[in-house]
Amino acid sequence: MASSLSSSSLSPPQVPMELHVTNREKLLKSLRHHLSELSRPLHGFVFLHGGEEQTRHDTDHIELFRQESYFAYLFGVREPGFYGAIDILTGESILFAPRLSADYAVWLGEIKPPSYFKERYLVSVVYYTDEIARVLHNHFQGSGKPLLFLLHGLNTDSNQYAKPAEFEGVDKFEMDLETLHPILTECRVLKSELELAVIQYANDISSEAHVEVMKKTRVGMKEYQLESVFLHHTYMYGGCRHCSYTCICATGENSAVLHYGHAAAPNDKTLEDGDMALFDMGAEYHFYGSDITCSFPVNGKFTSDQSLIYNAVLEAHNAVIYTMKPGVNWADMHMLAEKVILELLKRGGIIVGNVDDMMAKRLGAVFMPHGLGHFLGIDTHDPGGYLKGAERRKEPGLRSLRTTRELLEGMVITVEPGCYFIDALLLPAMESQSTSGFFNQEVIGRFKDFGGVRIESDVHVTANGCKNMTKCPREIVDIEAVMAGAPWPLEKRPPSI
Amino acid sequence: MASSLSSSSLSPPQVPMELHVTNREKLLKSLRHHLSELSRPLHGFVFLHGGEEQTRHDTDHIELFRQESYFAYLFGVREPGFYGAIDILTGESILFAPRLSADYAVWLGEIKPPSYFKERYLVSVVYYTDEIARVLHNHFQGSGKPLLFLLHGLNTDSNQYAKPAEFEGVDKFEMDLETLHPILTECRVLKSELELAVIQYANDISSEAHVEVMKKTRVGMKEYQLESVFLHHTYMYGGCRHCSYTCICATGENSAVLHYGHAAAPNDKTLEDGDMALFDMGAEYHFYGSDITCSFPVNGKFTSDQSLIYNAVLEAHNAVIYTMKPGVNWADMHMLAEKVILELLKRGGIIVGNVDDMMAKRLGAVFMPHGLGHFLGIDTHDPGGYLKGAERRKEPGLRSLRTTRELLEGMVITVEPGCYFIDALLLPAMESQSTSGFFNQEVIGRFKDFGGVRIESDVHVTANGCKNMTKCPREIVDIEAVMAGAPWPLEKRPPSI
Repeated sequence: MASSLSSSSLSPPQVPMELHVTNREKLLKSLRHHLSELSRPLHGFVFLHGGEEQTRHDTDHIELFRQESYFAYLFGVREPGFYGAIDILTGESILFAPRLSADYAVWLGEIKPPSYFKERYLVSVVYYTDEIARVLHNHFQGSGKPLLFLLHGLNTDSNQYAKPAEFEGVDKFEMDLETLHPILTECRVLKSELELAVIQYANDISSEAHVEVMKKTRVGMKEYQLESVFLHHTYMYGGCRHCSYTCICATGENSAVLHYGHAAAPNDKTLEDGDMALFDMGAEYHFYGSDITCSFPVNGKFTSDQSLIYNAVLEAHNAVIYTMKPGVNWADMHMLAEKVILELLKRGGIIVGNVDDMMAKRLGAVFMPHGLGHFLGIDTHDPGGYLKGAERRKEPGLRSLRTTRELLEGMVITVEPGCYFIDALLLPAMESQSTSGFFNQEVIGRFKDFGGVRIESDVHVTANGCKNMTKCPREIVDIEAVMAGAPWPLEKRPPSI
Repeated sequence: MASSLSSSSLSPPQVPMELHVTNREKLLKSLRHHLSELSRPLHGFVFLHGGEEQTRHDTDHIELFRQESYFAYLFGVREPGFYGAIDILTGESILFAPRLSADYAVWLGEIKPPSYFKERYLVSVVYYTDEIARVLHNHFQGSGKPLLFLLHGLNTDSNQYAKPAEFEGVDKFEMDLETLHPILTECRVLKSELELAVIQYANDISSEAHVEVMKKTRVGMKEYQLESVFLHHTYMYGGCRHCSYTCICATGENSAVLHYGHAAAPNDKTLEDGDMALFDMGAEYHFYGSDITCSFPVNGKFTSDQSLIYNAVLEAHNAVIYTMKPGVNWADMHMLAEKVILELLKRGGIIVGNVDDMMAKRLGAVFMPHGLGHFLGIDTHDPGGYLKGAERRKEPGLRSLRTTRELLEGMVITVEPGCYFIDALLLPAMESQSTSGFFNQEVIGRFKDFGGVRIESDVHVTANGCKNMTKCPREIVDIEAVMAGAPWPLEKRPPSI
């Protein structure tokens, strides 16, 4: 292999398509169980429409296609324009491929026969999309109109609804829009061993890339140059063509902007001596993502103020991971993180008073307005955070939580406490009668342009506890050593959690 | 500056917003002239809607936003959610910014006041999007309902229509859907000095990145690793966050797939000894793109067969550039390229017979099914290729042309002849009674798995000729030298055109 591959200990694995076979079996089992409990017949088809390529406005500029997430979960298909069905009675899986014109062979590549997709995606049979109505009618073994279980339900992060599949002849079918979405979503919440292995790989290559970024960070660079280092490492050595989300490469004051890095704030500041960096970046591999944040001083050496804030966040991060196990409620973990941070800010002299009083007044949300973490999988904000009927909390901080569920074995959830100095939140809190007394106005002035710190790991809930899948330097001594050129993992110390 | 910047002789320039002021002035002049000729009043507003951020399906995954191209041309705005107006009478330019909620400051960054956008984008005045109807009514100096010139017209590459802007209260305006699109499109066809400078920069950094790719190419690598090298070079050293289009990194047989590299053919082949590479990649800077193809053997040394095909394409490329000047018809250039290629294939013994007969039978289109080139600017396939009423040619090859216009000073057009061995085209032509006699069946068998060669440069039509803006090694000796480690440009030879 080329010498240019020597910058990584990893190489992109071949993901077995059994992963998606297992996902389909899991759905079938769960769906059949649900129908049986309601004494409904086990007839009909799960029926989904994969994603279609999108052009930019009226032009022929095609955005690089990435499969719709529910479809990716069940079928693992990388091509656009597919439909997929699962026969609930027989368990047969059917893919419908677009029928490509002869021109396709000249412009876009070999026209693959149905047998190619059958073999590649391990489904029972493959037809063309213009055969959907006929094929489903032929396969259906119940009486009356065949029943389709279509995907329709609320994404509680976007507040948008999944669109049920449409095709010519859909009017000749019965449709069930209620049953599939919650059951399929819950399948996605609990990861299989095969899914965990892919998420682990996305974490491994992304952790390595974060270390590469730490090593290359220098005062005078632009934020986007570190984004480029990350993207290059994960693609060149990790085979990751997509990221889970747009990279957040924030330094100095920008590190207090939670979702920095978008088109209107495009990672374009110059790194200055004394800045903290907050780099929130994760690669995606075979649809499954990672979501990792590292915070460190761009000059490689923590000041005492930087250490104070960083260690407050790190202790919160570690306290949550030590406590996590099945049965633990996520809102409690959020409050645990808040409490640890407040206690350490108090110890550092930034705030004063009784921490329980602070908690009651939601002071934690002034420093950490976002939720502690979210499910992670094929989507960065993986669905299923709120079960049907569950309501969001109303209090600051807690209302931002993307889930308030009890942890279950098999969940993968991000643990991402943060501490930020955000004028839009701090100034009102420092003026409000109910909270102004908590602030040591003199000390907090030192942090005006500090920005913020976030430490984010991806954590797998196991039978008796949890496992941190992220492998970045977390202790200050480790970060400083790596930034000074030490290899990672360090040879003499056990890695931090 | 950091040592990591030493890998490029370039650094990202500050693009003056006067570029877009000039674009607006050009449109105004052209539009006023058009209205005067029709004795229409010079009242009303050009009115456009910029692009909006898109989420992926029902999730909250936001695709990195890139401005709609016509809006980018006139206003240069990088943020989503804007509208823009130009008062035809006064020439005043008005931007309408979205009114952001207080939450934005916490999650997405500082909420910038209208004065920020006025200063940044050099417009006359900035309001909020909820003020559009009121503001335009107040500014309008004609009688009756104010007139809006909206963007509505056919993109001849995508066959899709631009969508006219919509906003609350639009029913209280007169609308003209016919006038604006052809006039604004023609403004985009002829580039200003300021536009040319940006396209030149996109070419410079992309040319340099192509050289970097040549130097790093090794047997055993994956195609996508060279994509990663290109992307990294143009972002890290060039500040290019976007590419003009998805990278085509084709090797071996894949190089005969004209638009390889998309999600269903994702640059994932391993480079094998003896493969030709065809890398079609171009970075975008401040909305303006580049579009460059280099072809070379992945092992760094051309075989005689590879030289034969490569030089046929190179001679076509050079012959076209030598001939280009205002007044020259692009379909003629396409046929010139075809003819040169056919002559050299004949000289190489691949085909036999009279080249004029081959031309009459459209044999050129068997080897080069795509058009010779297209306008380039804010879109990779920049609009304006067919003036209203102009019809496409019907013949193979010629019907693929994205323009058949006469060249004008200020156009930027790609020159991208190619020669491919595509079974889907070759086999029928070798069997057809009218063309089978042209093929030397024995010789052509050697090229079965060859793939193809494309050489693509971006060319600016000047007053008396043209200028090649692309600066890649083109001669075989130059490519072999660069791949063996020589610096580019070579020190002793003048660069090839």
